[in-house]
Formats: sequence, C-alpha cells, structure tokens
Amino acid sequence: MSTNDIPDTVVADIHVGHAYTRDKAAYLRRLKRIEGQVRGIARMVDEDKYCIDILTQVSAINKALHAVSLGLLEDHIAHCVVGAARDSEASGDPQLVQDKVKEAADAIGRLLR
Amino acid sequence: MSTNDIPDTVVADIHVGHAYTRDKAAYLRRLKRIEGQVRGIARMVDEDKYCIDILTQVSAINKALHAVSLGLLEDHIAHCVVGAARDSEASGDPQLVQDKVKEAADAIGRLLR
Amino acid sequence: MSTNDIPDTVVADIHVGHAYTRDKAAYLRRLKRIEGQVRGIARMVDEDKYCIDILTQVSAINKALHAVSLGLLEDHIAHCVVGAARDSEASGDPQLVQDKVKEAADAIGRLLR
Amino acid sequence: MSTNDIPDTVVADIHVGHAYTRDKAAYLRRLKRIEGQVRGIARMVDEDKYCIDILTQVSAINKALHAVSLGLLEDHIAHCVVGAARDSEASGDPQLVQDKVKEAADAIGRLLR
Repeated sequence: MSTNDIPDTVVADIHVGHAYTRDKAAYLRRLKRIEGQVRGIARMVDEDKYCIDILTQVSAINKALHAVSLGLLEDHIAHCVVGAARDSEASGDPQLVQDKVKEAADAIGRLLR
Repeated sequence: MSTNDIPDTVVADIHVGHAYTRDKAAYLRRLKRIEGQVRGIARMVDEDKYCIDILTQVSAINKALHAVSLGLLEDHIAHCVVGAARDSEASGDPQLVQDKVKEAADAIGRLLR
Repeated sequence: MSTNDIPDTVVADIHVGHAYTRDKAAYLRRLKRIEGQVRGIARMVDEDKYCIDILTQVSAINKALHAVSLGLLEDHIAHCVVGAARDSEASGDPQLVQDKVKEAADAIGRLLR
Repeated sequence: MSTNDIPDTVVADIHVGHAYTRDKAAYLRRLKRIEGQVRGIARMVDEDKYCIDILTQVSAINKALHAVSLGLLEDHIAHCVVGAARDSEASGDPQLVQDKVKEAADAIGRLLR
C-alpha cells in the first residue's frame, strides 16, 4: 500500500482511525467473498458433494484468509508500528514502539501456528 | 468418528453417499459459525476496530477451518480410502486404493501449504 | 509411490518393516540436504547476513520439511492404514483400522498447526 | 527483545550490523539443536522407526523453526523497519520505510504459505 500519492492531511486522518481505513471497501469486498465461499462449502456438504472437492474449497478459503491477514499486517506495520517509531523518536521513549513491535510479532505468531 | 455402533446396512448407505454424511448436521453448524465469524470480521473492519484485534479473529477462523478440514480428512480416510482398500482386496486391483491414497495426500498437501 | 511393479513377497517384507522402507535412501538424502540447509542458516547468522535473506532460507526449509512429512504420510496411509483395513476385513474387527485412521488424523493435525 | 537496558552506542553498532546480532549466540544454539533434530529424524528413518513417531518429530522441528523465524522477524521489525522509519523521518523520504515494510510483509507471506 503506497501512501506516497495522498496528501499529508489524509494520512493524519488515517492515523487517527486505523491503518486499513483507506482500503476498507476492498477489505469488505474480500470478506464478503470469503463469507460466500464458506456458505458454498456448507451447500456442498448439504448436497453430499465429494469430500476431496470440499477440502479443495477449504484450501481456497485458507488462502484468501491468509491474503487478508497479510494485508492487515502490512497496513499495521506501515502505519501503527511506523507511527509508534515516530512517536518514540519525538518523545524519547522507546517503549512506545517496542510495545507495538511485540504486539505485531505476537499476531504473526498466532497466524503462523 | 466411530462406526462401531451403527448397523452394517447404515454403513453401506453412507458409502453410497459420502463419509461425512452422518455428521452432516454437525459440519453445517460449524460452517454456520465460521460464516458468522467472517461476518464479524467484516463488521470490525467497518467499525474501524484495531487491526491486531481483527487479526486475532482471523487466527480463530483459521483454527476453526483447520478443525473442519481435519474432520473431513479423517472421515475421508476412514470411509473412502478404507472402502477402496476393501474394493481393491475384493477385485485384486491395487490401483483403486492407490488412487484414493494419492488423492488424499494431494488434499493434505494443499492444506499444509 | 507405486507398489504395482514389485513382487508380493517384497511388499510383505516391507509391511514387516515400515511403509517408507523402500524409499529409505531417498528420505535419507532429503534429510541430509535439510540438515545442510539448517547449517547454512547458522552460517548466515554467524556471518551477520541480512535477516530477510535468512528468513527466505527458513521458508525453503519449511517447504522441504513439508514435502518429507507429506511423503511419510502418504506412505503411512498407503501401507499401514490400508494394511490395517485388510486386517480388519480379515479378522472382522473394525477397531484395527479405526485406530490407524485416528493416529494418521492426529499426525496430520499436528502438521497443520 | 528489549533494547532498553543497553547503551546507545551499542544499539548504533547493532544497526551497522544486523538486528539479531546481539542474540547471535542464542540463535546459533537453537539452530544447532534443530540440526540435531533433523539428524535424529534421519536416524529414525535409518532404524525403520514407526512413521507416526517420525512425523511427530517433524512437527517438533516445524515448531522450532517457526520460533526462530518469528524471532528474526521481530528483530527485523524492531530494528530495520523502525530504523528505516527514523531515516524516512529525518530525510523526508517515505520510500525508505515503505520498502522495508513491503520486504517484511513479503517475508511473512512466504512463512505463512
């Protein structure tokens, strides 16, 4: 996600809200699609489709969810972590950014499991 | 999943349908819950909730999907693969079961990725 | 892994040993290579190589290990599970194969985590 | 990893080298142990141990490698990404930190697969 081409005031607004706010519509579309995929699997189970075909669909959802979480993580690092780095620099308190880094690493750890 | 306690005729029926047929209601309930979790994440994005909290929810969905796919895989091996082993034994053609094993391994490979 | 082209007596021997026995040399070669990759990462750390390059190598090892575990799983299903299906059929005791299926599913579950 | 309790000059040195430099000995010990685990699996294959027991050991290595990569990622974000945020701030060029964030996200993506 590039923030190069948007005016600083907008970036400031985003920082008040959250990192993914500008991409909100895109995330909502992707989640809508994933919701539909889950419903599709329920339909396959209901219609006694072949297990392996259902598992293939589950793999597709896993992949779509991975893409969403990777996007959220990238936005989080690009905005919250980098913002905290700036705040730590300004305030001289390294704890601010260290807390954000730890939080991001814990989130990555939960996704890796 | 134990098939010990159901009469043979029912097992035969299942084999005509699919492995997970007896647990259909349970799978549908779990998928309904996952669908709700995905919708919950969309709501969190829409309400500008904190990225890390959203990521925690995504990890929960990953886990729930893993449980569903593991259940489907176990049912598949217990019924389709074992059924094919029986058919191979009866017909003297090892290809029947080898194809089912390959198919199951490919599905596991897609889930591991 | 096809067992089509080997005489029955060899298959019987394998079953006395384990599923992967015929591919032993191939597994040992792959594990030797993975061991070397781990040593390579230690060398990169020791020489202060760039973190991202080290992480790329870790991903390569993950992939190689996945391939090994998938191979072992396929061999296990093709031999131990299918063998137990045969034994269950012969003895009329479904528990034999059910135990093997459960054990395989548990192993898959540990790999998925 | 806390950098709170070390003098600034040391932090500067690390930044010249790499993020994990201070933990080098710990990383090398962990990689040595993983190397031994891989060799242990080769020995199990060589001695025809039971496939499921081998797979359990593979899962343990997966876990150990995940811990190493998570540590490297956390160090990378804490040092390289945060350092780039500082450089971007000082130079007024946001590209510096954006490149590092993209690189980190790509590395996470490779680990998630």
